[in-house]
Amino acid sequence: MSFSVGEHLKLTLFGQSHAPAVGGIIDGLPAGELIDLNGAQSFLDRRSPGKSPLSTARKEFDISQILSGLTDGKTCGAPLAFVISNGDTRPGDYDKFRVQPRPSHADFPALLKYGDAHDMRGGGFFSARLTAPLCFAGAVAMQILARRGVTVGAHIAAIAGVDDDHFDLVNLTKEQAETPSQHDFPVINPTQGNAMKSAILTAKTDGDSVGGVIECAVLGLPTGIGSPIFDGLESAIAKLVLSIPAVKGIEFGAGFTIAGMRGSEANDVYSAPKGNKLRSKSNHNGGILGGLSTGMPIIFRAAFKPTPSIAKAQETWNITNGQIESLVVSGRHDPCVVPRAVPCVEAAAAIAVLDAMLCA
Amino acid sequence: MSFSVGEHLKLTLFGQSHAPAVGGIIDGLPAGELIDLNGAQSFLDRRSPGKSPLSTARKEFDISQILSGLTDGKTCGAPLAFVISNGDTRPGDYDKFRVQPRPSHADFPALLKYGDAHDMRGGGFFSARLTAPLCFAGAVAMQILARRGVTVGAHIAAIAGVDDDHFDLVNLTKEQAETPSQHDFPVINPTQGNAMKSAILTAKTDGDSVGGVIECAVLGLPTGIGSPIFDGLESAIAKLVLSIPAVKGIEFGAGFTIAGMRGSEANDVYSAPKGNKLRSKSNHNGGILGGLSTGMPIIFRAAFKPTPSIAKAQETWNITNGQIESLVVSGRHDPCVVPRAVPCVEAAAAIAVLDAMLCA
Amino acid sequence: MSFSVGEHLKLTLFGQSHAPAVGGIIDGLPAGELIDLNGAQSFLDRRSPGKSPLSTARKEFDISQILSGLTDGKTCGAPLAFVISNGDTRPGDYDKFRVQPRPSHADFPALLKYGDAHDMRGGGFFSARLTAPLCFAGAVAMQILARRGVTVGAHIAAIAGVDDDHFDLVNLTKEQAETPSQHDFPVINPTQGNAMKSAILTAKTDGDSVGGVIECAVLGLPTGIGSPIFDGLESAIAKLVLSIPAVKGIEFGAGFTIAGMRGSEANDVYSAPKGNKLRSKSNHNGGILGGLSTGMPIIFRAAFKPTPSIAKAQETWNITNGQIESLVVSGRHDPCVVPRAVPCVEAAAAIAVLDAMLCA
Amino acid sequence: MSFSVGEHLKLTLFGQSHAPAVGGIIDGLPAGELIDLNGAQSFLDRRSPGKSPLSTARKEFDISQILSGLTDGKTCGAPLAFVISNGDTRPGDYDKFRVQPRPSHADFPALLKYGDAHDMRGGGFFSARLTAPLCFAGAVAMQILARRGVTVGAHIAAIAGVDDDHFDLVNLTKEQAETPSQHDFPVINPTQGNAMKSAILTAKTDGDSVGGVIECAVLGLPTGIGSPIFDGLESAIAKLVLSIPAVKGIEFGAGFTIAGMRGSEANDVYSAPKGNKLRSKSNHNGGILGGLSTGMPIIFRAAFKPTPSIAKAQETWNITNGQIESLVVSGRHDPCVVPRAVPCVEAAAAIAVLDAMLCA
Repeated sequence: MSFSVGEHLKLTLFGQSHAPAVGGIIDGLPAGELIDLNGAQSFLDRRSPGKSPLSTARKEFDISQILSGLTDGKTCGAPLAFVISNGDTRPGDYDKFRVQPRPSHADFPALLKYGDAHDMRGGGFFSARLTAPLCFAGAVAMQILARRGVTVGAHIAAIAGVDDDHFDLVNLTKEQAETPSQHDFPVINPTQGNAMKSAILTAKTDGDSVGGVIECAVLGLPTGIGSPIFDGLESAIAKLVLSIPAVKGIEFGAGFTIAGMRGSEANDVYSAPKGNKLRSKSNHNGGILGGLSTGMPIIFRAAFKPTPSIAKAQETWNITNGQIESLVVSGRHDPCVVPRAVPCVEAAAAIAVLDAMLCA
Repeated sequence: MSFSVGEHLKLTLFGQSHAPAVGGIIDGLPAGELIDLNGAQSFLDRRSPGKSPLSTARKEFDISQILSGLTDGKTCGAPLAFVISNGDTRPGDYDKFRVQPRPSHADFPALLKYGDAHDMRGGGFFSARLTAPLCFAGAVAMQILARRGVTVGAHIAAIAGVDDDHFDLVNLTKEQAETPSQHDFPVINPTQGNAMKSAILTAKTDGDSVGGVIECAVLGLPTGIGSPIFDGLESAIAKLVLSIPAVKGIEFGAGFTIAGMRGSEANDVYSAPKGNKLRSKSNHNGGILGGLSTGMPIIFRAAFKPTPSIAKAQETWNITNGQIESLVVSGRHDPCVVPRAVPCVEAAAAIAVLDAMLCA
Repeated sequence: MSFSVGEHLKLTLFGQSHAPAVGGIIDGLPAGELIDLNGAQSFLDRRSPGKSPLSTARKEFDISQILSGLTDGKTCGAPLAFVISNGDTRPGDYDKFRVQPRPSHADFPALLKYGDAHDMRGGGFFSARLTAPLCFAGAVAMQILARRGVTVGAHIAAIAGVDDDHFDLVNLTKEQAETPSQHDFPVINPTQGNAMKSAILTAKTDGDSVGGVIECAVLGLPTGIGSPIFDGLESAIAKLVLSIPAVKGIEFGAGFTIAGMRGSEANDVYSAPKGNKLRSKSNHNGGILGGLSTGMPIIFRAAFKPTPSIAKAQETWNITNGQIESLVVSGRHDPCVVPRAVPCVEAAAAIAVLDAMLCA
Repeated sequence: MSFSVGEHLKLTLFGQSHAPAVGGIIDGLPAGELIDLNGAQSFLDRRSPGKSPLSTARKEFDISQILSGLTDGKTCGAPLAFVISNGDTRPGDYDKFRVQPRPSHADFPALLKYGDAHDMRGGGFFSARLTAPLCFAGAVAMQILARRGVTVGAHIAAIAGVDDDHFDLVNLTKEQAETPSQHDFPVINPTQGNAMKSAILTAKTDGDSVGGVIECAVLGLPTGIGSPIFDGLESAIAKLVLSIPAVKGIEFGAGFTIAGMRGSEANDVYSAPKGNKLRSKSNHNGGILGGLSTGMPIIFRAAFKPTPSIAKAQETWNITNGQIESLVVSGRHDPCVVPRAVPCVEAAAAIAVLDAMLCA
């Protein structure tokens, strides 16, 4: 079931970097929901490469085709099947990675698992290209969530050690959550954003790459959504976010910082309700207690490693002759995947949260 | 499916803090595996309370009863059903939390989700008591893993801001991984351990609590175990670890630190194989690439918040009269759950890893 | 996942004939449902042996213990874990079946699948004893269904070629559906019931056994419950019913008879609604179209083979010496499992239908 | 999860009769399997309409496109995503069925479940068109099974009360199982086949339809494949077969006939092994005991109702005005779906059996 996720809302992905297409099937969508495909395309555009010198030159044709699931533009109970063609694939010399596995890529473990049959071209199904259908599904989920008063928004929290401002754990507004993603480079603080861009370009010039952190918020979720234990909101969101290539960690609310606090400091003491919703004075738990939504903003951060494909020569081990050799990974690669990954994180969160709402 | 987890190895838990018992069913265990119940009990003892002034005075009777699944001490293909009686439950005045929900507990969202039917006694099924059956299942998994050459070991990486030494990401040995858990207070560096204990006792004296970090390693896993995308090892481990109460974050390998590295620094360049196993010079990816095991040590860290139940008076909101009131949470509570949570983290990792091995 | 079933309502069973207990966990029950344990015990009593010369002399102690899931007699959101002790087990000489597998038992394929570790005592987990927890779960489901206006009732449709009257596919009333199960020998027509009893006793005297058919009805289900394709009501019910030992076939509505009809005869033409519910003049489809409930009675029949354990000597193949040998299966065996299987079929139907209602 | 099925081999379908396409995703296929797409197309052709006056005149373009999952013609570990375009759709006047639901179609319950959003065109996703992707998946499964020595073959056992010869439960050969499907009209006995064809044509002339029975065999499956209880082979096969539109019953081995036998007659007594495989003298259990394969032929029969869409005028209930009205269902409809359904039944069996083998 490795390409399927979800309990009530079931998403199944398919694709390889150099196959004809990537795409997926979304089963369990409520019937009668209007889906704005232009809006979904705009969302997909946010993860598209080729828009600036900051990202890879590969041009994707992220035009999605709907094969079933929509009737007169609305969900009809049928699984929503969608296809995103893989344009502009270049054969390249990927076969050499069967002998010289790329450092910090899935090449070597994949060869052990799948044998010679593994598709090495562009990383096969380990390619970040698979996040395109994830984003499409996320765009669909976000449209349905919006109609239920739920907002999902993310921003770049850090790149190359340069930090953006943080979302306010307690008072984050819908507008604040949505604003960063309206910019090409989704940050809260444009000055910090410019410093990040400089760091990316410097790394690129050096034939190197940089990593970063994305912070994401879910606002407007009613209290009590989610499940205890294994299907808690943290588990559900983490499962999806950690399936995005390059993510190596996730933390909710105060995250790792909470480990150094005392209980009297960390506890989110309740304050008077605002409207009908209970409020707490702090939100170190990131809007989740016991796996359930508290009604406060859900806020989490995901750590992205620097792109493993770099222009610099690296050592690797030649499987066939047992020698340590120099490897140069040519091709088009992002010096930093973080800006393009922002909609991916939003999509992962939206899918997990909508599934939890539909299970309730 | 919130109380079930796993694909091939399916664990289903049950229980509430003040119900007659907690326990579970493990389906999908290979037949013919000898299970050492005394060993499993010893493992459970590591999470038992009441052993020292550092933890709650509640005495549990963690004696597990096997209802089915073992024939002549060996797994026989039947689901392994086990029961751990809830000894020493004290009724207490939990009903007041229906009106005055405890800060940073699941009380309030659970009341919204389950209504009056929610069992408030001892936190109901949100109680950390549910980690007892998780540990039993983990002990079973670890015995089977050991026979396949796989070791799981964890230690306290930090409490109250006091750091233990770290596991060596590259050269960690089986002995190093297993040694901490043989101590009552599982750390690598006993001096740091003493400082942690002092911090716990000070917090207790203050009527307060502290949090911490647990670091866990899985050694000996063959290369290529796991699945891509949604069932990647990181997703599978995170789902289980984040289901442990109080965990607010997880990171693999260099974790959040990798976000600040450059690719040329972060990349785990291959070195010559050691025996039959490929090695890398560094292991910032924590032994996982593309969701698959690389053959290097799998190492991750989980952040635990301080125990929310503290002796100090706290503000809360009275649901019925709408007033902000003072709440004192009496009862027996750990000033720090981290020492007892070490076997829980090992168990979560072992269950995820054995499931992945059996799916292969 | 072989011991788990269900989407929203998840039932996981455990047990072996000669293990300490059988039982299960029901996850996903709505919170706040009053469960009448005496009523559940009465339901279990219907499948209990030892009540008459018609069934095996083995005495079971079908007293169920609830380990979690009920608070003040009501479901509370926690998984409902229940245990039924295995009383009166007799060790017996089951080991000989490792060498001389019993005809029409699971002995031989189980030995191939599980090897020496297979528990041969009383059939291990292939024992019909596992239907005791199925019945308990069914009793719980039926109580919840009853509160939603849904009735499940079954009767013996045939034993040893003697037919009972049939349920009226169109006009079956709640009372008619429930009446047979109030008798020790659940038939509609007591004269036919007596003929069945005679046939059973004659077979018993001959050291032989007989089979039969059970017909089951579900009344009061709203229109549109169920799912298309793989989780259609027919698939869901069949999966559960065919998991009852000895069942070799299932048919819905007119069943195999419909294969010989013409469309103009088979089609269930709509008539005027009765109250708010649409009616059809016939119900050859057994209340299910496209996997969804139509609002008409759901009626199906399940075929049970004669008990394979008979007192007569039979030939079998000795695995170790390769000879055809005579085998006598001693022990306590029902000459006919059908009367005791009636509540099992009701339970299977109730679990499938409640799951479908909760998914809606 | 209604459009997904399987444990290790996960099939997810999509499509509607009048959407751009039908298709699916097969996840969990072993890597390195050569897939003969021409062979799969030939298999699909067997269910294609428009080949003879016996079936609907609608022309389908069953040319499948592979979007991912094959590299150099072999499975590579990626999900196999395939698309079958919906050619020759005719808009038609399906909207009238919202007011006048067709008897024995899913129209009415689907309107209750999905509301106005339900796609009524051609039956939406309740259309038998969804069996095209089922057949493609089955063709893939059968190619992989064949390489493991497993054969799946079916034939028309009866149409309109005319019976074909039966498969020999004990001695069925691979050739006998495969031969019927090589004919346009897949029967064992061509004389009976001609009588069936006459019955179909007569029904067509009368503006009516007929039903029938399909018998299917699985040969060569090793002993011990399958799982106990809920994932037994009977449950797994029945779940898939009953998801084929128009199927109202399934029976294994002697099926409903076994209910009238005595144990001494029904029991499948072991005879001497043939080669390495244990044999039984009879096979009333249809090759399955305790949910596991015995090594004898797996044989089952499925009952198909007559096509509900007939040219004759029928009564129905007008939802809006509450009147009983006359309904004429125009359009292209098979007078008998059974001949085209033979590969669908083979596909369902093959998918269930391959999943069970991969789980072992």
